[in-house]
Amino acid sequence: MKATDKKIPYKIYLDENELPRAWYDLRADMKNKPAPLLNPATHKPVTPEELEHVFCRDLAMQELCDTQRYVPIPEEILNFYKMYRPSPLVRAYCLEEKLGTPAEIYYKFEGNNTSGSHKLNSAIAQAYYAKKQGLKGVTTETGAGQWGTALSMACAYFGLDCQVYMVKVSYEQKPHRREVMRTYGATVTPSPSETTEVGRKILKEFPGTTGSLGCAISEAVEAAETTEGYRYVLGSVLCQVSLHQSIIGLETKTALEKYGVKPDVIIGCAGGGSNLSGLIAPFMGEKLRGEADYKFIAVEPASCPSLSRGKFAYDFCDTGKVCPLARMYTLGSGFIPAPNHAGGLRYHGMSPILSQLYHDGYLEAVTAVQTDVFGAAEYFARVEGILPAPESSHAIKAAIDQALECKKTGEKKVIVFGLTGTGYFDMTAYRKYNDGAMSDYIPTDEEIGKSTSSMPCVEED
Amino acid sequence: MKATDKKIPYKIYLDENELPRAWYDLRADMKNKPAPLLNPATHKPVTPEELEHVFCRDLAMQELCDTQRYVPIPEEILNFYKMYRPSPLVRAYCLEEKLGTPAEIYYKFEGNNTSGSHKLNSAIAQAYYAKKQGLKGVTTETGAGQWGTALSMACAYFGLDCQVYMVKVSYEQKPHRREVMRTYGATVTPSPSETTEVGRKILKEFPGTTGSLGCAISEAVEAAETTEGYRYVLGSVLCQVSLHQSIIGLETKTALEKYGVKPDVIIGCAGGGSNLSGLIAPFMGEKLRGEADYKFIAVEPASCPSLSRGKFAYDFCDTGKVCPLARMYTLGSGFIPAPNHAGGLRYHGMSPILSQLYHDGYLEAVTAVQTDVFGAAEYFARVEGILPAPESSHAIKAAIDQALECKKTGEKKVIVFGLTGTGYFDMTAYRKYNDGAMSDYIPTDEEIGKSTSSMPCVEED
Repeated sequence: MKATDKKIPYKIYLDENELPRAWYDLRADMKNKPAPLLNPATHKPVTPEELEHVFCRDLAMQELCDTQRYVPIPEEILNFYKMYRPSPLVRAYCLEEKLGTPAEIYYKFEGNNTSGSHKLNSAIAQAYYAKKQGLKGVTTETGAGQWGTALSMACAYFGLDCQVYMVKVSYEQKPHRREVMRTYGATVTPSPSETTEVGRKILKEFPGTTGSLGCAISEAVEAAETTEGYRYVLGSVLCQVSLHQSIIGLETKTALEKYGVKPDVIIGCAGGGSNLSGLIAPFMGEKLRGEADYKFIAVEPASCPSLSRGKFAYDFCDTGKVCPLARMYTLGSGFIPAPNHAGGLRYHGMSPILSQLYHDGYLEAVTAVQTDVFGAAEYFARVEGILPAPESSHAIKAAIDQALECKKTGEKKVIVFGLTGTGYFDMTAYRKYNDGAMSDYIPTDEEIGKSTSSMPCVEED
Repeated sequence: MKATDKKIPYKIYLDENELPRAWYDLRADMKNKPAPLLNPATHKPVTPEELEHVFCRDLAMQELCDTQRYVPIPEEILNFYKMYRPSPLVRAYCLEEKLGTPAEIYYKFEGNNTSGSHKLNSAIAQAYYAKKQGLKGVTTETGAGQWGTALSMACAYFGLDCQVYMVKVSYEQKPHRREVMRTYGATVTPSPSETTEVGRKILKEFPGTTGSLGCAISEAVEAAETTEGYRYVLGSVLCQVSLHQSIIGLETKTALEKYGVKPDVIIGCAGGGSNLSGLIAPFMGEKLRGEADYKFIAVEPASCPSLSRGKFAYDFCDTGKVCPLARMYTLGSGFIPAPNHAGGLRYHGMSPILSQLYHDGYLEAVTAVQTDVFGAAEYFARVEGILPAPESSHAIKAAIDQALECKKTGEKKVIVFGLTGTGYFDMTAYRKYNDGAMSDYIPTDEEIGKSTSSMPCVEED
């Protein structure tokens, strides 16, 4: 499969007129579609009306509709995309050479924008629909701060108010990330906080907690529901987010096809699943339709291994249990992961789309401990120049492992991975690693079991 | 001059095969060439032999030769360039619309690499020549940290040791920048330090000083001269640096020509002059040869206005007076600027090339106070998405002023400015601005006079 006909450039940039004009909804090609969201009170499938209390109208519709293969991207969103997209697909010549692998390695780099990650792809879409609906503002949660930054940028662009609940551990470790959001006009509150009922409840139950995405979601939802003209927006997990993020995969596919390259393995880090589901979308579509075959690998932190060690069951998306229930791989909505620096992957659940695909055997999952991940990150930075985000570095670790395996077997595989973002705001974590002060944490079966056993309506896997 | 024939994309990316194969040396087209560097002891023009004690051999030759119009870029450097170049030329559609100006605004964005700025263009060249000479390592100074980061990356790529003297105020304000350099394997020392004789001397004379580029240069030069197998490298001011940075202007020119756009005004921030001299190089060449006319504007911080308020005279490039003397606009090598957050522009002198051009009337200079600069930065960030470096924001401020002037007069000018880097490591400064705790500082005539009057061999302007 090695492409030898054409000289592949270091960076493949599509033209702006090659930017996809429609998102691709993978659900349209799934035989086993993700199970419907359930109302947390009634445990019955949520209705559009119920969902519109939480989400913007158009986004609620996107969440519920699972049959429309292509969703046109509104012009206003396309114009914003043009400020930072198409993003480059990079041929990792230097990494290949350094590893001495016969494999070809490519990465889709989503870090070349101020939010520092792929999160902007969905943030601008969600802000657009909020504006279109005439809302005053939106609330959200953020872990590592990438989503919060992206949403702040998007809200600044459309003139919307933006309230961010930031997981406390990240809020404290990343004052600069906070300041970026502030520069874009957002209000940032450490979560759990005293500003919401659910925050106060969580603080009472777990005093001294460093927070989690699950907690922050609960607070943001409550804030949206109790403030006139506001809705809640979410940066991952949801099907609408996977839809918006499909632009990553669509661009990747076009770029590879332009050079006659066909991937064997596609790798992405997986926290809530937004990047991975977007990256693999059109390739997985081909696989589901029986048109092509690829190996897909989700890389999870060993400290928060939803796919690898969770249960496939209905669970709350948030710790405060105010959100709809989703059927997904979950460690239990009560699971609060160790203060792992890869903040964006500290989530107890997983995208229902990816969960279903994993359940049906279309997707593999591996885990990595954080010292290995930072080792791969530093190696990559020195060889390829880009300082990666800890989250993205999970994918780097797995890609290097695959390439080294090829070195052993002599296989000339084509490996594609998602480099979702940069680590410029993660230097506290890099410092820990450089100082040899970073430790690994793997939850025990008991810790996971304790959390999943308290789930509201677990279905056995 | 408004280009209406072709649809101009938001971002103009050249192909990798359009990457310039040679740097352009503006000196070849200057009738009045920059005056020769002088030996600090004898005050006679430095010989190649003398210069090779400080600089790598090939770089010393580049410094001294001022007649070779095109210098081929070695293949090894081109390969590294391909990892992050050609850099985009961006059409600021959103900024134009927001300002309501009839002007067209373009910016050459050099921030899309981990060093966060244009500095990498020269760092990789200098590291390459050091490696080629078989050296063990290099020493340097850094202000804001952009140059130090760039050099660390370049040294990691070529397997060279890298010792960075970082201006103390930046070292303290930017621990994360420091950590990036460390991640790339560099040693970082706050300057002035006790590790060099000149550092100890400066500390004794000015206890509690927050340092300056001038001090840090002295220390780095001493460290190189007293360590076997090391040479000193510099990120700005020198003609060799302007040579390497000409790639910015060459790419900009090719990109504009591709779309039939001819600039009226070209704007860049100016500290030591590396970015500005590179950006304007091929355009200035046309002006010098009488082939075209452009207006060039250097934007300086009001706190450190070398061109605007300095003297055109021979002066030391460093505070410790160990470096060769250059004829340039200078505030005096004893001038230690106020702790201005735009660290990269805190330099007492100016590129001899730019100084000569300014002296001969080919270039204009304006100053801006830092609160205005941060105001422009935040405005730009919210409109164009990119969070700019404080240094670059000087150019943004001037570009906005020009565009607003066009709004008044109705002129459809084409404005091009250099967006040299991102501000991701400048959030402490942004925070001060957001908190309303930032103040402006303009040195008095007396302060400047006191410093210039002690210069070794001042020639009256």
